[in-house]
Amino acid sequence: MQTLVLVGVGLIGGSIGLAAKKRGLANKVRGVGRNQNSLERARTLGAIDEVCLDLAAGARDADVIVLCTPVDRIAAQVLQMAPHCAPNTLITDAGSTKETIAAAIDGKLPPGVHFVGSHPLAGSEKRGPEHADAELFRNRWTIVTPTPQTDASAVARVTEFWKALGSRVRVMNPREHDQGLAMTSHLPHLIASALAGMLPAELVDLTATGFRDTTRIAAGDAELWSAIFTHNRAAVLDGLTRFEKQLTDYRQALERGDVAAMTQLLAHAKKVRDALGS
Amino acid sequence: MQTLVLVGVGLIGGSIGLAAKKRGLANKVRGVGRNQNSLERARTLGAIDEVCLDLAAGARDADVIVLCTPVDRIAAQVLQMAPHCAPNTLITDAGSTKETIAAAIDGKLPPGVHFVGSHPLAGSEKRGPEHADAELFRNRWTIVTPTPQTDASAVARVTEFWKALGSRVRVMNPREHDQGLAMTSHLPHLIASALAGMLPAELVDLTATGFRDTTRIAAGDAELWSAIFTHNRAAVLDGLTRFEKQLTDYRQALERGDVAAMTQLLAHAKKVRDALGS
Repeated sequence: MQTLVLVGVGLIGGSIGLAAKKRGLANKVRGVGRNQNSLERARTLGAIDEVCLDLAAGARDADVIVLCTPVDRIAAQVLQMAPHCAPNTLITDAGSTKETIAAAIDGKLPPGVHFVGSHPLAGSEKRGPEHADAELFRNRWTIVTPTPQTDASAVARVTEFWKALGSRVRVMNPREHDQGLAMTSHLPHLIASALAGMLPAELVDLTATGFRDTTRIAAGDAELWSAIFTHNRAAVLDGLTRFEKQLTDYRQALERGDVAAMTQLLAHAKKVRDALGS
Repeated sequence: MQTLVLVGVGLIGGSIGLAAKKRGLANKVRGVGRNQNSLERARTLGAIDEVCLDLAAGARDADVIVLCTPVDRIAAQVLQMAPHCAPNTLITDAGSTKETIAAAIDGKLPPGVHFVGSHPLAGSEKRGPEHADAELFRNRWTIVTPTPQTDASAVARVTEFWKALGSRVRVMNPREHDQGLAMTSHLPHLIASALAGMLPAELVDLTATGFRDTTRIAAGDAELWSAIFTHNRAAVLDGLTRFEKQLTDYRQALERGDVAAMTQLLAHAKKVRDALGS
């Protein structure tokens, strides 16, 4: 392709830029954002070729646009850019929630401009282009989330795009994605944060790798995650209810001093975790 | 010292052996256990010099004995070995709970044989001497837990022992240790297990590093952890109650759609987690 446009050039946007340039996917990668400093850093790091501070101007001549901004900004930015897109522009995103975004965009794009939601299951609690990595998506799953209205060739194009960056691709509807991610990402974030938040200062020296691993994702950006929880509220609440029931099983085993029940709970969890690998 | 005896030569025992030999701490390291195969593997790996299948024989001529066995076996093994120890033998352990063990041993040792509890805050969900590491204790804390009856010179000796292995040492009473570790290790293990255990097979592909980090310790041995929970039941239950209250704060912010409250909870957790470092 001629021009790849990345809106938001942090860890994810920067990694897409680095991967696209390393793999010769686009002749030009344009970074669009609000913060000139951060865009210049991304250019210095080789993640983008040119910087642009304006969404409308950023959309011009784009072949593919990827929104790598917080989930509560994606839909509005897509709708702002779409009227300035050339026909056949493909717009996608990298947000952690999909249903609210798809619903806000569906049916509102000019003819010939296509949006298909995406979510690369890669990243970390770190932010900024300094942590970008050209291999971030390699052998990781990206979930592509068309709606019934989505153009089939646009789904094929976005699938090719992520595969070209090294990712494996799975297609799912937005709701199914959000319900799954509530369990595998959003609820774990909530739990890690709840655990980290209750650590008193005087116990810091008593933490070791176990506590650090279990709470690592709590270092993620608070506003970004608050927006994710807002978008996926019902599924996260449902997951939380199920998790509280699990805790009740552990509580009862503890209260009753039921060593066999506790061992069985732990053995089941170990089996599930072992199957995931490191 | 002449002879260092390690009872249980898995990850922790093996690491003590490797560290002691690397740092020239003992002329001879004897591994004591029930499984000849595992002991021979530890000898091949250079963690011990000689193997012994009998606790009484293993205690003979020991200068220092370290029990690296599950917490529900430590006290009984100490009491079995103590009558066979030479005067001035120092016995310690590496167990994750301290109060129950100390209470079972206090006042029951022959004159001149000293027990002081220890807990090196190092390790992982992995087991076996294959994962042992001579640098496992370097710059990590080891908590030494004397009781009012403990001989002061024995506390000094055990402190020197862990320091010689590269560890930093903090002295705490057994109850204070157990209450602290309930929050920083035992409760996190319970939470990680509860979360891992509720993952349905069809969502495995939707897990990424966040889920893996948060649940990593759930891969720990089920029986070993069940014994830890039994020993530290009251403090873990107390921690669980506090954690459930935290979850309620998150639930209320979600239910009310209170983005500011959610952001505040997440921002506080991030601050605590950021302060811990990676």
